[in-house]
Amino acid sequence: MTSCPLPTPPSRYPAVTLAHGGGGTLTGDLIRRIFLPAFGAPTPTLRDAAPVPGATDPARLVLTTDSHVVRPIEFPGGDIGKLSVTGTVNDLLVSGARPLALTAGFILEEGLPLETLRRIVDSMAAEAASIGVPVLTGDTKTVERAGDPPGLYINTAGLGELVIDPPPAPENIVPGDAILLTGDIARHGMAVMGARHDLAFAEPLASDCANLAPPLLDLYSSGIPVHAARDPTRGGVGGALCELAAASGHDFEITEQTLPILPPVRTACDLLGFDPLYVANEGCALLLVPAPSVPAALDLLRRHPATAQTTPIGRVLSPSPSPTVLSLTALGTRRRLTPPPGEQLPRIC
Amino acid sequence: MTSCPLPTPPSRYPAVTLAHGGGGTLTGDLIRRIFLPAFGAPTPTLRDAAPVPGATDPARLVLTTDSHVVRPIEFPGGDIGKLSVTGTVNDLLVSGARPLALTAGFILEEGLPLETLRRIVDSMAAEAASIGVPVLTGDTKTVERAGDPPGLYINTAGLGELVIDPPPAPENIVPGDAILLTGDIARHGMAVMGARHDLAFAEPLASDCANLAPPLLDLYSSGIPVHAARDPTRGGVGGALCELAAASGHDFEITEQTLPILPPVRTACDLLGFDPLYVANEGCALLLVPAPSVPAALDLLRRHPATAQTTPIGRVLSPSPSPTVLSLTALGTRRRLTPPPGEQLPRIC
Repeated sequence: MTSCPLPTPPSRYPAVTLAHGGGGTLTGDLIRRIFLPAFGAPTPTLRDAAPVPGATDPARLVLTTDSHVVRPIEFPGGDIGKLSVTGTVNDLLVSGARPLALTAGFILEEGLPLETLRRIVDSMAAEAASIGVPVLTGDTKTVERAGDPPGLYINTAGLGELVIDPPPAPENIVPGDAILLTGDIARHGMAVMGARHDLAFAEPLASDCANLAPPLLDLYSSGIPVHAARDPTRGGVGGALCELAAASGHDFEITEQTLPILPPVRTACDLLGFDPLYVANEGCALLLVPAPSVPAALDLLRRHPATAQTTPIGRVLSPSPSPTVLSLTALGTRRRLTPPPGEQLPRIC
Repeated sequence: MTSCPLPTPPSRYPAVTLAHGGGGTLTGDLIRRIFLPAFGAPTPTLRDAAPVPGATDPARLVLTTDSHVVRPIEFPGGDIGKLSVTGTVNDLLVSGARPLALTAGFILEEGLPLETLRRIVDSMAAEAASIGVPVLTGDTKTVERAGDPPGLYINTAGLGELVIDPPPAPENIVPGDAILLTGDIARHGMAVMGARHDLAFAEPLASDCANLAPPLLDLYSSGIPVHAARDPTRGGVGGALCELAAASGHDFEITEQTLPILPPVRTACDLLGFDPLYVANEGCALLLVPAPSVPAALDLLRRHPATAQTTPIGRVLSPSPSPTVLSLTALGTRRRLTPPPGEQLPRIC
């Protein structure tokens, strides 16, 4: 007979078992050993839900959610933990919101080494702390292992508060708006591709995985109008532009030569047959601003490391019943961009 | 050359492919065919995050998250879609909050029939609509199939607003508090067990999967103090009581004969060797109220169908450095309940 609240600490398992997701002492053990040291103590008064600090205006709250299934779970420039924070935070930011809080839902595959889980969770916590957004509450489930090696899925939902009025949205786009791109493209997709298939690129490629909180919050508080914003993740810059054009009802035009792309990334894309316009990014944004605001926007964004490369890549043309994104290629030809049916690389984020 | 925003509608796939999670036109197809008809149109002005309606006091917001991995995904009395709504809504409710909004993150296994997905999503939407809580925003990812048949995981995060002050929390528990249980126990676990292993029970068992919004919101607005509340899901009533006792620093005492349990559920537990005290529930709550408030609480709760069977099952004893849950068994003996290491059935919710 043992006493209820003070069970013998379970022996230290080296890897996740199905029982770690059972909500009992083994789940508690994960929480005490891995989650609490990373994310901090839970609130003393609530167990099933946690109070949200820092909200000021209930009419300006926004919610988002993103599940992350990237494989491999660790790759040059990031890991599924960091990505689960930056992805959701960037979704709030491009919606015009300051991130207030995140939730974390873990689905762990049986056999995942606890040391791997600890690295992922620590990475997640470090990224959240660098942004100043708390991971307020979490949940842990376990499932049988699907692949080799065992991995995990992370859902992060995010609560934010709008800080720019009107918030960026395709409906605000007008002819003449400039299309700015805040960083070089296709790095995330090619870095994950290289890590997944153990490709020995001549120069190592690292994902651009990063949060855009400092530059975008600075931009929103500057008074510079931002008509629309989008993070070109799955489907890349090409997919995001097609979506924005369709949602706004305007034709767009871009000049491909203006798109920043690192030489090794271009080489990798060429060799492997990927169009960099459609390769996923995880640390840049497309921002549509009125033409007269471009100098001020560039000046502000280029002062931030995450957006130091910001450059105009195109502009919004006239309204159209059949909105098209026209791309001027390096060869001087024009191509219409088509929305991708799916991601060229499955499980990219 | 095709135009950007009006691609040829993709052919009707009968089942999920990895490309359905790529964020392109196939993901859009799922959204248009399955998610929008169920959950309604997204907000016109925001795409990556959705505004939250109905919040009034930013100081009283709470967040929760829950991933659902139950297998099979459909079982008597519910399915993973309904469960993903009731589970998260009940977590908000037992924290003292009115649910304001949910998010839905889907991870779909390749090969999941779209008709199955539609049934699950429709069930989720119907449950959310019955509570009056919107599913505001979602995300879809795809992964390779892990088992047979292919299934899905659903994360739901929930935002709520506290409606009782102080909110229920173990810290409020005092000696003499009555422990109420709002329904019969062990039905969810045994129903899922039966469905998973195709057991032919003499009488069919259905999960108790249900949301507790009507009775708990009624209780919170009644003025009756609720010192603590917990939904005894994974780990069952026994696990939840051990957690509450430990968190409160008090000994508890329950009388096992007072626990409502349907005869076929008891028979199934006996035959299969499960202790019903530790079998998962998905539609009942443990409520700790001051002894003088018991008659009023019972009167109120028994008027609601979901809590019509509410009954006192025990009481809080004195503070203890080593809190124990003592159970008086049907045989007249006493046993100390121990917290379970894991759930007896993996993937129960």
